[in-house]
Amino acid sequence: MTGLTAKGAATRDRIVRAATELILERGVAGMTLDEIRDGTKTSKSQLFHYFPGGKSELVAAIAGYQNSQVMAAQEPWIDRLDSWRAWQGWRDAVITHYTGLTHKYCSVSALVNEVAPTDPELATQVIAYADRWLAQLATGLHRMRDTKLLRPEADPDRLALAVFASLQGGLLVMQSKNDIEPLAAALDGSLTMLRSYAP
Amino acid sequence: MTGLTAKGAATRDRIVRAATELILERGVAGMTLDEIRDGTKTSKSQLFHYFPGGKSELVAAIAGYQNSQVMAAQEPWIDRLDSWRAWQGWRDAVITHYTGLTHKYCSVSALVNEVAPTDPELATQVIAYADRWLAQLATGLHRMRDTKLLRPEADPDRLALAVFASLQGGLLVMQSKNDIEPLAAALDGSLTMLRSYAP
Repeated sequence: MTGLTAKGAATRDRIVRAATELILERGVAGMTLDEIRDGTKTSKSQLFHYFPGGKSELVAAIAGYQNSQVMAAQEPWIDRLDSWRAWQGWRDAVITHYTGLTHKYCSVSALVNEVAPTDPELATQVIAYADRWLAQLATGLHRMRDTKLLRPEADPDRLALAVFASLQGGLLVMQSKNDIEPLAAALDGSLTMLRSYAP
Repeated sequence: MTGLTAKGAATRDRIVRAATELILERGVAGMTLDEIRDGTKTSKSQLFHYFPGGKSELVAAIAGYQNSQVMAAQEPWIDRLDSWRAWQGWRDAVITHYTGLTHKYCSVSALVNEVAPTDPELATQVIAYADRWLAQLATGLHRMRDTKLLRPEADPDRLALAVFASLQGGLLVMQSKNDIEPLAAALDGSLTMLRSYAP
């Protein structure tokens, strides 16, 4: 969204945050624009002004907000996964972020999964977030191979893909069991797997 | 579904199979009972006779059929994951099953994910399938610790959870990228992780 004044952008942000909180609290079932309007104390014309694309645009903004929260929670580790200490720090940061959020997290991803199949733009956006996340894991592992923390035969891109799949599966099983333990087991398993490539 | 004659059960099976094929071909969007009726050459009264619970019951039957296909594809390994050879055989069987099925698989799981949040019975059924799958992985790992193929400090239940999360995440990323490689990387990573617990 371009062309908004600073004040306009702040208002739009406020609506996105309030809508996200609302969905986290109430779940996605029956979530209509009217309910979001009521819940975020936004008038019809205001909502249309900030989200001319309707529900689709609002969901995209919510997905973006959720993504930025998840990525911020992994700072500073996610940008420098080039040491064993950083990987352990990252693992702990991910667990801390999702602990207590297990059930809530489900609502936003359910919303996105509901809308994405019929909204190619949102689907592309979600794939871009995932690809960027995966690339950050791979960048760290490439550096570790360069600095001989990983053996020369280690394939950083393939290892990153394995860690990323494990992370996503950990989140999925965490949601279905409403328990942080599957995510912790998945990440610990990934770190054990990575460590077996140390010289 | 009880109380059906052998012939009735066969007819019901035929409808479930045809509906599954239809969903695999056409995708889930706009999948209505009318379309399923047309596509499977079933009359309205026949469909109601075999699925008095409507779409919900049909989706449950489709999920059951899909589950039985996936589990059968892992035979004979899944029942005896108590050696390194069995784990490698299982890994290969999973990859063989999903190769070429990457995009198609998406449709059935999308259908189930769409219906499950508002259908507690289906949700319970899907969780039971997952739990049984996880338990089979754990059973094999328990045996391997008993027979000293794993070190005494290995925690078979936690390792099984890590492998299962990795498998589910591999399937998820496989679907979003329409590529078998993420699943292969995830399973290979899991096997590497398990092997690091050998004495």
